[in-house]
Amino acid sequence: MNETVNIANGGRRLRPAVDELEGSLIRKVAETNIGRDDVIPLWFGEPDLPTPDYIKQALVQAVTDDHVFYAQNRGIPPLRETIAAYSSHLIGRDIDVDRITASVSGMAAIMLTSEVLVDNGDNVVVVGPVWPNCKGTVFIMGGEARTAPLHADETGQWHLDLDDIRSRCDERTRAVFVNSPGNPTGWIMEQDQQRELLAFTRERGIYLISDEVYIRLIYDRPRAPSFLDIAEPEDRVIVINSFSKTWSMTGWRLGWLTHPADLGPDFSKLNEFNIASPTTFVQHAGVVAMRDGEPFVTEMVERYRRNRDLVFQRLGAMPRVTLSRPEGAFYAFFSVDGMTDSVEYARKLIAETGVGLAPGRAFGEEGEGWLRLCFAAEADTLSAAMDRLEPAFS
Amino acid sequence: MNETVNIANGGRRLRPAVDELEGSLIRKVAETNIGRDDVIPLWFGEPDLPTPDYIKQALVQAVTDDHVFYAQNRGIPPLRETIAAYSSHLIGRDIDVDRITASVSGMAAIMLTSEVLVDNGDNVVVVGPVWPNCKGTVFIMGGEARTAPLHADETGQWHLDLDDIRSRCDERTRAVFVNSPGNPTGWIMEQDQQRELLAFTRERGIYLISDEVYIRLIYDRPRAPSFLDIAEPEDRVIVINSFSKTWSMTGWRLGWLTHPADLGPDFSKLNEFNIASPTTFVQHAGVVAMRDGEPFVTEMVERYRRNRDLVFQRLGAMPRVTLSRPEGAFYAFFSVDGMTDSVEYARKLIAETGVGLAPGRAFGEEGEGWLRLCFAAEADTLSAAMDRLEPAFS
Repeated sequence: MNETVNIANGGRRLRPAVDELEGSLIRKVAETNIGRDDVIPLWFGEPDLPTPDYIKQALVQAVTDDHVFYAQNRGIPPLRETIAAYSSHLIGRDIDVDRITASVSGMAAIMLTSEVLVDNGDNVVVVGPVWPNCKGTVFIMGGEARTAPLHADETGQWHLDLDDIRSRCDERTRAVFVNSPGNPTGWIMEQDQQRELLAFTRERGIYLISDEVYIRLIYDRPRAPSFLDIAEPEDRVIVINSFSKTWSMTGWRLGWLTHPADLGPDFSKLNEFNIASPTTFVQHAGVVAMRDGEPFVTEMVERYRRNRDLVFQRLGAMPRVTLSRPEGAFYAFFSVDGMTDSVEYARKLIAETGVGLAPGRAFGEEGEGWLRLCFAAEADTLSAAMDRLEPAFS
Repeated sequence: MNETVNIANGGRRLRPAVDELEGSLIRKVAETNIGRDDVIPLWFGEPDLPTPDYIKQALVQAVTDDHVFYAQNRGIPPLRETIAAYSSHLIGRDIDVDRITASVSGMAAIMLTSEVLVDNGDNVVVVGPVWPNCKGTVFIMGGEARTAPLHADETGQWHLDLDDIRSRCDERTRAVFVNSPGNPTGWIMEQDQQRELLAFTRERGIYLISDEVYIRLIYDRPRAPSFLDIAEPEDRVIVINSFSKTWSMTGWRLGWLTHPADLGPDFSKLNEFNIASPTTFVQHAGVVAMRDGEPFVTEMVERYRRNRDLVFQRLGAMPRVTLSRPEGAFYAFFSVDGMTDSVEYARKLIAETGVGLAPGRAFGEEGEGWLRLCFAAEADTLSAAMDRLEPAFS
């Protein structure tokens, strides 16, 4: 009955920005195949190992201790202090607790950033191919996400030309969004290029949003370069991080922002009106995860390195595949000779080989012609997937 | 250095909507006094009892069972099915699971609703005095929150004139927001008035958002009237609910929306880009909380009823106080003869009596002259608070 009455804007079904919002193409490919025993699912970006016991035990203790009430909007002080100490140690510079706000996931941290910055008609320049959810938050706030494309060389390695960022910025550009180590590409932005980009965003007075959730998942050095290495505390730089990948805590929903101290009260209010604060006992477990987690992180990175080598060696040797050795994150992102529609191809691959991969187009038009395989899995599972893929890629 | 460069909109510090966002006046009054041993804190709206053991045990089991991975955007199927069955039973009508979306709190559910509906320049008509956070979400999305004021009679009971809603709606009105039983007023919207309001929003083609988190906290009948009693499944009615109050789970962050089935895909995408999904093991515990919770709910309501009677009897008898007997929620909302600035008064009250109350103005201008006391506390604590307040209110 509602459909017949429509009084100007008031009677719209939805905000246009939400009405036009695209869902995930990865989910579109995966959805009808989730849970099938005959499919090896390497489509999502999620560690296959459950959260380690020491974190689970900390959770049980926190609940036993009745940490079940509302918490401070920006997170409990022990968590924010632990994050500040961890970051200071990791980066080797003092990161003040006033610059830390806990969020209910890295995803939520990105959404808060778009709420702070993006208005109807504003734009954010996003380096891609990239996990599409940053763009999703910009769209929700009525903004435009402009891709500054990475370029793949003939070995399958991705490179950024900073002019591709500069040329896309205009007077409505609010921020540049960079994800390094990158999902899906494994691309790493080196410090000299970070310096050059920071100089540019400073000059324009715009924000630099750096999604560094894979900073510890890197195979040939201790950690990836961070914008926290070079930014001053008052710079318009917001760094996103999360417990999901580093401590195998995807389902827990805990992340954080590192930001100029003057944004603290703003993120506090936004947390209040979005979620109040992250789950209280999860925050307490997060303190322990981070404080006691180095042995786990070391072991996990070692495991992913072996997986990376296995996948690079086998997949990279298949005749139709172009794949450079992933340096960071836990994805093999590769092109397939002759493939023009990655969504259709990924669907066919599931049907014909029983291996679930993510289509490159899910990460933007620049990803068309490519597929993403998540190697955060058992070595046996990966070997079996390679056996199945070999005929298709030969 | 950033402050000197400012290129049109791109160089703004924040979105204007966020820059102008007001924080909570309750927190402003409470903040410097939180944790003081000599203060009886009755300012926040939170049960004092920790979550019951049967829910904590369910959480431990869920973590032991490794429910620590990502979950479906709209919530795990067992949770959505449990909520649908619970609602169908409570309301006495079939509520389909397609109409249920889990959210990371009732707060988050309200934010999702504003994301779906509110654009720059749109408005939402909100019945108040009311918990200010609904208005906060409208402001964040660049909209205007217009209050349709409740009117207090000489006994301190609040009433709504529907013309106060009608007269505030215009062509940019996207929704009417109602919270009944109401925080802070305890006001209950009866079914005949609900029918009349629903007829109006249907006629206008706008949404009706009903915050029913206190539907079970009611003292003289089994539950409060719900818009689900009278709305058809396809009506533009969105009902907000939460685990926080009914099962003493404030710090857990779990809530849900009941909505027309056609909004399901939209809320799914919005959950994806806001938070991915609520904490996975919390969802599993939520299933048990709801399924096995009736004895706890009965006992809790009985306890609050005794508190309500104690507070009504003693506070209501103080000479300067006007207080009607609260019928729902767990607040005494009362006016104080001669008080003109509730924020200043609440501060003075903390200093002089050591009782922490929330100022009425925190709930909108209509609340000026009033104070809110949360009676979800031990009877001894409430008696002590009454002893301390008596001299001030005589």
